[in-house]
Amino acid sequence: MRRASLFLSPGDVADGILQGHLLVAIDVLRASTTICQALVAGARDILPVAEIEEAKRLAESLGRENTLLCGEREGRIIPGFDLGNSPLEYTPEKVKDKTLVMCTTNGTALLSRLREAEVYVAGFVNVGAVIRRLGSLKGDVAFLCAGLLGQFSLEDAVCGGMLVAGLGGRRKVRLSDGAVAGKLLYKRFAKNLLGMLQASHHGAYLTGLGFGQDLEFASRTDACPVLPVFREGRITIKESC
Amino acid sequence: MRRASLFLSPGDVADGILQGHLLVAIDVLRASTTICQALVAGARDILPVAEIEEAKRLAESLGRENTLLCGEREGRIIPGFDLGNSPLEYTPEKVKDKTLVMCTTNGTALLSRLREAEVYVAGFVNVGAVIRRLGSLKGDVAFLCAGLLGQFSLEDAVCGGMLVAGLGGRRKVRLSDGAVAGKLLYKRFAKNLLGMLQASHHGAYLTGLGFGQDLEFASRTDACPVLPVFREGRITIKESC
Repeated sequence: MRRASLFLSPGDVADGILQGHLLVAIDVLRASTTICQALVAGARDILPVAEIEEAKRLAESLGRENTLLCGEREGRIIPGFDLGNSPLEYTPEKVKDKTLVMCTTNGTALLSRLREAEVYVAGFVNVGAVIRRLGSLKGDVAFLCAGLLGQFSLEDAVCGGMLVAGLGGRRKVRLSDGAVAGKLLYKRFAKNLLGMLQASHHGAYLTGLGFGQDLEFASRTDACPVLPVFREGRITIKESC
Repeated sequence: MRRASLFLSPGDVADGILQGHLLVAIDVLRASTTICQALVAGARDILPVAEIEEAKRLAESLGRENTLLCGEREGRIIPGFDLGNSPLEYTPEKVKDKTLVMCTTNGTALLSRLREAEVYVAGFVNVGAVIRRLGSLKGDVAFLCAGLLGQFSLEDAVCGGMLVAGLGGRRKVRLSDGAVAGKLLYKRFAKNLLGMLQASHHGAYLTGLGFGQDLEFASRTDACPVLPVFREGRITIKESC
């Protein structure tokens, strides 16, 4: 029987534990949501990096003409960068055909630690695409929550639970304790994802910074029906889905 | 307003994050449960250590006459030790007036990392005593789940949620995302704690080893109404509760 594991915090991922799993990274607020929106808006690809200086060097080496520097620290755009981490900034006018070098506190930091693997990127805005893809493949699945500063975040757990629920019931999938918990949390909040985002620690923080609309955007199930795949340092659209 | 944080995995606890908090350590299966039972059975004190060799050295230095070596690896008694980690072993005949040097994979490993602080030890068997104590004190509270091999475990999250619920409602306590999640999980499983333990990853593993009765014991709310407090390397009964 297929197994599904939901790692509720990045610290839960021990060395070697992901081997042989299909991998899905979740950072609802906001990297996953922003990545999906950027690809929908026509960005060519996205290069996630962990550190600001690394992002600057990479953007310089690629040439700044077709490259945008994107990312945040403490929720705010990094000084000197072209775009922050609000999905609303990622319009076709700004990102079409561009390469985005992206540096965020939780989401791209998580991805940049997974350089060897192929990783799907998931938020509420593209759950359907991710579930369809996983349904077409065999094998165990590990869902990785980016969390907030290394800690549990409610919104990533709920999104992870939505994905777990999408894999099917008990007869089809064996769930880890984290997957059981995430699925229950999703069921509790399924009818009010926006309210859950607003009540979450990270959501309240972003609202206080003036990013309340980002929460509304992030709560829209399947608003950005793409499947971002991270492979060899680049995120692109998985075309076959 | 008082704050309550529930750290669902040991890896969620970043450096310095616990400062100024009342601390409660939770390892339902089985260190918390066993520690409560041992104290009810008259053990003088319990010295939690992380490593087997350290436990042996400490027991030797204390003199073996009034000292028992206790603990497990992979759920089984450590070879050469006097007792394993099943609460059912900790009878008055065996432990009365003894000092227990205890080495378990998750629970005492967590405690031994918290040497500076005063930490209460909680399981389902003593939730009432812990809640009464916290209710008599002021200040923010951090509940620390021992988890399983560094990962999330359902039973510790549910017990943490039960403790969070016991602190009072929204008007009295501000909850972290982890505390919100734990409280919801507790509400889901409140009527069937034993079923939750049996379905949990760790519970199923222990049942497979023949420790099914330990789950039944661990699920008994307030069966061991003591308040173990860990301070300066020793766990004793907090007498004032």
